[in-house]
Amino acid sequence: MKRLTGNVATITRELREREWEQDFSDISRTVLDIIADVRKNGDAALVRLTKAFDGVDLTAFKVSDAEIDAAYKSVPSELISALETARKNIYDYHEKQKRSGFLDSEKEGVIRGMRVTPLESVGIYVPGGTASYPSSVLMNAIPAKVAGVQKVVMVTPPDAHLNPAILAAAKMAGVDEVFTIGGAQAIAALAYGTETIPSVSKIVGPGNIYVATAKREVFGQVGIDMLAGPSEILILADELANPAYLAADLLSQAEHDERARITLVTTSKSLIDATERALAEQISTLERKAICEVALQNGHFILAESVSDMFQITNEIAPEHLEIQMDNPLLYLPQIKNAGSIFLGKFSSEPLGDYIAGPNHVIPTAGTAKFSSPLGVDDFTKRSSFILYSKEALQNEATDVITLAHSEGLTAHARAIQIRLEEE
Amino acid sequence: MKRLTGNVATITRELREREWEQDFSDISRTVLDIIADVRKNGDAALVRLTKAFDGVDLTAFKVSDAEIDAAYKSVPSELISALETARKNIYDYHEKQKRSGFLDSEKEGVIRGMRVTPLESVGIYVPGGTASYPSSVLMNAIPAKVAGVQKVVMVTPPDAHLNPAILAAAKMAGVDEVFTIGGAQAIAALAYGTETIPSVSKIVGPGNIYVATAKREVFGQVGIDMLAGPSEILILADELANPAYLAADLLSQAEHDERARITLVTTSKSLIDATERALAEQISTLERKAICEVALQNGHFILAESVSDMFQITNEIAPEHLEIQMDNPLLYLPQIKNAGSIFLGKFSSEPLGDYIAGPNHVIPTAGTAKFSSPLGVDDFTKRSSFILYSKEALQNEATDVITLAHSEGLTAHARAIQIRLEEE
Repeated sequence: MKRLTGNVATITRELREREWEQDFSDISRTVLDIIADVRKNGDAALVRLTKAFDGVDLTAFKVSDAEIDAAYKSVPSELISALETARKNIYDYHEKQKRSGFLDSEKEGVIRGMRVTPLESVGIYVPGGTASYPSSVLMNAIPAKVAGVQKVVMVTPPDAHLNPAILAAAKMAGVDEVFTIGGAQAIAALAYGTETIPSVSKIVGPGNIYVATAKREVFGQVGIDMLAGPSEILILADELANPAYLAADLLSQAEHDERARITLVTTSKSLIDATERALAEQISTLERKAICEVALQNGHFILAESVSDMFQITNEIAPEHLEIQMDNPLLYLPQIKNAGSIFLGKFSSEPLGDYIAGPNHVIPTAGTAKFSSPLGVDDFTKRSSFILYSKEALQNEATDVITLAHSEGLTAHARAIQIRLEEE
Repeated sequence: MKRLTGNVATITRELREREWEQDFSDISRTVLDIIADVRKNGDAALVRLTKAFDGVDLTAFKVSDAEIDAAYKSVPSELISALETARKNIYDYHEKQKRSGFLDSEKEGVIRGMRVTPLESVGIYVPGGTASYPSSVLMNAIPAKVAGVQKVVMVTPPDAHLNPAILAAAKMAGVDEVFTIGGAQAIAALAYGTETIPSVSKIVGPGNIYVATAKREVFGQVGIDMLAGPSEILILADELANPAYLAADLLSQAEHDERARITLVTTSKSLIDATERALAEQISTLERKAICEVALQNGHFILAESVSDMFQITNEIAPEHLEIQMDNPLLYLPQIKNAGSIFLGKFSSEPLGDYIAGPNHVIPTAGTAKFSSPLGVDDFTKRSSFILYSKEALQNEATDVITLAHSEGLTAHARAIQIRLEEE
């Protein structure tokens, strides 16, 4: 971990070079060809591309209910039990995010309102191989079902049967249909539909660079979720914090990715020293030691000049995961302007949020928590406005509408109001 | 207007070729150069680019309070009065969109919550020349201020002083600072900041193809709003509807853009005939007749087979503006799945929504109302989740977290929980 110190401006300048931008241009052409192929040739393209990219001969893509049930039964009972605890907590938390519209009838002759309605259908991409996480299936599918989405479709590469927990999680989350296609061709199929794959209104879920590029390309035709960058953890700690806990939590995010962003901010130099020793001690026993070592090399110990500076630095970074391992942590909430998910106190370890606590683990990275939010029920609903005016109410505001329309040179707008005043 | 008839599948297939996709690649290179220039050279680049593109020598970009006050005073009082009615209605409507977070303390030893906080700063782009609409200034700035955004910055090309109503609307909406820069260089300045232009968290507002491309390119560094397509109106009408009103409302959107999407859906052939006559009659007197004629050529009269088909077609199209000129219009709300803004009844003419009623006039186009929403307070806030666990609560769920972490091969995640159970 690099050590940084100084005032807020100095520290944030040093941290600012984030390599968020990825160059998608090399891959774009391939992905555009795949999308055009699927749009034109439908299922035939999916069969051909699945053979080419996944090396699998598929005659049908849909996973039957019997296969899903068999997968569920093959998962060890303690894992089913853990997924069930997670499912319940995620469901309960997201239920509280549901919102109503409103109907405003305060003004004579005028009804104004807002409706909140679920998307009609959603596609969830689940990566294959070692990056297929049942927890992600729950985190993506449950908010959609809580929102009231009628049709939640999951797609995952044909090697997914290697991980029956994915199918078990899909069943538990209430996913309606599962198809074994992956890559850019799966995104194209969800965006435009084929003979067997239904088109959806929005596509969510993580994927490799081909999947991410395909999502960017089909955006507009369908909605997409955010594009995720490497995982991040920023811990704010005071001298009462336990260095072993700090080290363990930093390492829990470091093991995700060599490019993970690992940061400890404190006013205590001795805490930095102790955490550095704890990291050295703990890392040696970890299975993903090699990944952690690279991530830590790029990590930062920040020695801040004051508690106020600690929060200013945090708000500039806008971390995905923020731990506050300080006395009376809840009292610091008002000072947090930008952070995706916040873990308060020494027992609120970040992996609790990854798996079990209930809040979503799909969280903005790379500073985008300044303007975006964790995945939630909102992402699977949309708002519509509506108005209903009486003739008298229209008459009351007609002059203002006509004045505004004329001032903008839009005389047909004015005419649409005038005609209703003239005619019977 | 073309006439379409048949079942829902036939009609929606005919309507489906929307030319939403624009090819930005030609312009992207120019825009990327401009962004790089502004990032590197700051204000000096802005001076140079403003001279090159706008033909104006600017020594300072900031519009002073005195200039804004003078502009406000130069606007005719009836226009100020109309803007004030609009401001109040927009403000009141958006106040009702504000939402709270929650704190869930139902489970022993566990606090889970959601915070809703305003973005720290927002930039609003306002086009120059004939497309500078004071109503759009209100529609973009007011939701930001209602959300609690501390700093709302407006940028507009240097010819904006030709339209003092823009500055008056900015003052009325509570815009904090105004700068006279336009084009891609203005977007770059807002995204990265210069010596005089502050960087912001999100950029909203319409613009030409250079502005739209620049917004796409800086997305990730800052948030952006949706990219707007041509205006759309779809009217559902029964035989009781007044053809003159229908024609006037169709023309009000036709005058925006030759590519506007104008659609009337009904089960009554005689209503289509009468509306066609009313269009021919009204169009001859309009100032923007030439634009309207092209838009109408691309418009559609759809003769549906049933009222149920009328709504299915509507939900496939997902129009920006939907008028229901039918008896008892409110009762049809449940049948509407996808529409941005809904106008109920014969007196709820679409221009009411453009200017005065209060709901936002920045609304999803090109079918994107299937997954996105009109601009609102939500677009200027973000959610964060937080949790606080006691040691006992952590112990209760530790086994499940550890099971899940091991199942995903993330042993450092498991370790972060285990270490808290072992140590004191």
